Amino acid sequence: MDISVIKIGGNVIDHKENCTEFLKLFAHFPGVKVLVHGGGVMASRIGSSLGIVPNMHNGRRITDKETLDVVTMVYAGLINKNLVAELQAYGQNSIGLTGADGNAITSRKRPIKDVDFGFVGDIENVNTTLLETLLGQNIAPVFSAITHDGKGQLLNTNADTIASEIATALAKSHNVKLYFCFDKKGVLMDADDPETLVPLINEDIFKALLQDQVIHSGMIPKLENAFNALNKGVSNVWMGLPENLLLAAKGENAGTTIESL
Amino acid sequence: MDISVIKIGGNVIDHKENCTEFLKLFAHFPGVKVLVHGGGVMASRIGSSLGIVPNMHNGRRITDKETLDVVTMVYAGLINKNLVAELQAYGQNSIGLTGADGNAITSRKRPIKDVDFGFVGDIENVNTTLLETLLGQNIAPVFSAITHDGKGQLLNTNADTIASEIATALAKSHNVKLYFCFDKKGVLMDADDPETLVPLINEDIFKALLQDQVIHSGMIPKLENAFNALNKGVSNVWMGLPENLLLAAKGENAGTTIESL
Repeated sequence: MDISVIKIGGNVIDHKENCTEFLKLFAHFPGVKVLVHGGGVMASRIGSSLGIVPNMHNGRRITDKETLDVVTMVYAGLINKNLVAELQAYGQNSIGLTGADGNAITSRKRPIKDVDFGFVGDIENVNTTLLETLLGQNIAPVFSAITHDGKGQLLNTNADTIASEIATALAKSHNVKLYFCFDKKGVLMDADDPETLVPLINEDIFKALLQDQVIHSGMIPKLENAFNALNKGVSNVWMGLPENLLLAAKGENAGTTIESL
Repeated sequence: MDISVIKIGGNVIDHKENCTEFLKLFAHFPGVKVLVHGGGVMASRIGSSLGIVPNMHNGRRITDKETLDVVTMVYAGLINKNLVAELQAYGQNSIGLTGADGNAITSRKRPIKDVDFGFVGDIENVNTTLLETLLGQNIAPVFSAITHDGKGQLLNTNADTIASEIATALAKSHNVKLYFCFDKKGVLMDADDPETLVPLINEDIFKALLQDQVIHSGMIPKLENAFNALNKGVSNVWMGLPENLLLAAKGENAGTTIESL
């Protein structure tokens, strides 16, 4: 199968109109597809209504028990089910999943080194059989960023990594393209200036941009995930604005294309 | 197929130990099965932490927009995903669903008559194709009490009714038994005295008990759901304590059996 794995960031889904625009586009996006969504913005807001202060380390959330409950509610419940219901309205059959559902993604609680990230899971296995069954019936799996350890414990897992690992696992038997959609035009030399778009990045360019500190914080693991996917057989990786997805799918220049060397 | 549809009440799943005991039993329950769960107790608690006061009418929740968000978070997120993760640990593959997922259950927002129940859905259709696919792979569907209208709106739906409608829909092509598990031994003449168990109820006995006001509040719709299921082809309906499920499955007398006339 030709499969598109599309990751949508929390900043996009947090704005009702942008989210609706994206979901219509996703519903009409050609071929079979998997959606992976974030939701950190909304989780922080609801967590703080419940008196829980988000605890971050280098742009990654530290997940204590209370925070895990909040992200499970917000990602797997509120956001995921509303996305699925809206996709159904646009004629795209879809099913909302965490890694626990159908044993789709198992992970291991991250070992404590310098930082204890709490209930955070590093992915060990993606169950492609379930995904292939769903995709074969043109049901789009919609993943929230929750996995499980197979022993009863839910774990918070970075949504970019989930997208990358799903793409990689499916790439063993399929032609897979991976798209990261967020609220920037792509990788920018100056985050505040869309004119500074970097249209193409390979690992050499990445290293140079890292050294010059042009790329930092959340963009680093995102690009690492992109290269990881390319190195493991994903055919294309792209980053940019959701409204440019169709252009990207046609191979037109409308964001940042990631290339292996 | 021989299919068991098992409903578990919010009072049971709200107690960690009781819930774990039930889930182990469910995982080892013979044959293919569907789980439907409530969660009103936990939703009220988390809702009140968020400053939302539960609004009830005759034991049924009135679902304004804020309450819908809370039940979506708590039922479809926090409770559902933890149940699924725990079932996986006991070797029971399972997948957590709302009615929106795979278009499993569509409903219609309840028309306003005397009371405006808000975002409450009355079931119109159960998609048995998806359920049969999952059950055929011995994946247990785990339903939270959320449905959708097919137009993008999630709706809160009574979990007993969901269990009854799923059982009824599957009974068209399968041999289906329906079990309602809660924190009482069964239907009791005196709710506080387990010695007053009514071991068998048919519609004549139900009417007599109603007239004598022995049965009231939440038990009325539960029994109506039971008779509805029997009248539409479900072979057995039972109510009682979760720990008596296996006895009930063997036809032993350990709760209340509901019989058609």
